[in-house]
Amino acid sequence: MGIHDSIINYAKKTISLTDSEAAQLSEAFNEIKVKKRQFLVQPGFVARHRYFVIKGAVRAYVIDEEGQEITIQLAIEEWWISDYNSYIFQQPASMFVVAVEDSTILQISFEDELKLKALNYKFETFFRTHAEKSGAFMQRRLISRLTQSAENRYEHFLEKYPKMANRFPQYAIASYLGMTTEFLSKIRNKKVRKKLK
Amino acid sequence: MGIHDSIINYAKKTISLTDSEAAQLSEAFNEIKVKKRQFLVQPGFVARHRYFVIKGAVRAYVIDEEGQEITIQLAIEEWWISDYNSYIFQQPASMFVVAVEDSTILQISFEDELKLKALNYKFETFFRTHAEKSGAFMQRRLISRLTQSAENRYEHFLEKYPKMANRFPQYAIASYLGMTTEFLSKIRNKKVRKKLK
Repeated sequence: MGIHDSIINYAKKTISLTDSEAAQLSEAFNEIKVKKRQFLVQPGFVARHRYFVIKGAVRAYVIDEEGQEITIQLAIEEWWISDYNSYIFQQPASMFVVAVEDSTILQISFEDELKLKALNYKFETFFRTHAEKSGAFMQRRLISRLTQSAENRYEHFLEKYPKMANRFPQYAIASYLGMTTEFLSKIRNKKVRKKLK
Repeated sequence: MGIHDSIINYAKKTISLTDSEAAQLSEAFNEIKVKKRQFLVQPGFVARHRYFVIKGAVRAYVIDEEGQEITIQLAIEEWWISDYNSYIFQQPASMFVVAVEDSTILQISFEDELKLKALNYKFETFFRTHAEKSGAFMQRRLISRLTQSAENRYEHFLEKYPKMANRFPQYAIASYLGMTTEFLSKIRNKKVRKKLK
């Protein structure tokens, strides 16, 4: 199985594809390999691509007014990542996007995505569905952040994304969930003690 | 000018439309009039429509674990609103969506939107573009919330959405920006004093 099959299989969850359409889709993507700590996007530069993780782990973060890193997004296999606002509007990024493990990634450029969408309405449907889902995901995340206690946010994260928790360093998950590393560590220890009882 | 012209004019910012396509688009929407304090969406019920505000002001909020109202979205003329996650997945809502003024609204049902998108790829493009922009908007909002001080968030809000500030009660704007009503009031007074000096 070629590396590009993963994007085809992923797309087929949303749209039907003939063999030639599948080829069109996969040709629009380039495979890249990035090393741990390598940056894909940096603030001030336009995010020219969006990234689909084949293997590995990637994190997007911003630096707040106090100089702290705040994790905005986490991506492992079959997740998309980029500075979304920068990519959509082709404006300078505010995020860092960095590989947390050595990773294999499929990237598509803004221009190639435009061409793909103009070529066939199925690709419009594919990206429209993705945009809707990621909007709904961000809404759920915002609501969880604004309405749940830190402890419940962590419980919810573990339950919904069990694979994520072990792939990212503690400080990345803590700032993703809006708490200090110390506090996350306290919650984790409490859970371990509960299990031991 | 008919009330439906507003959605046609709005759509023409994104896509070109022949007269018959414009008619197809506008026929998919129904005009409704809602009174101040009337609910469009309530938690536990599926959001069957998305709403495009023609005239008026609408607010979406959730109730947090402490029983406080947290504003998730504000909409005035030419803004969309609904419980997005509920609408996209046709699952029970977690939000209240309520009219803050007597309002005139165009609504489209989930089924009619599906039909429209299947009818013509231009409508796919229209809704895809909207989904992308609203995703980017939510990302900017999340980042502002996570990285800026309350005072800077308010400054930024005034600068970007000057028309919004006078249309919603102080508590709605305060909770939208993630601060108490008292704190917002303090910031506002400080600004007035600065101007008087």
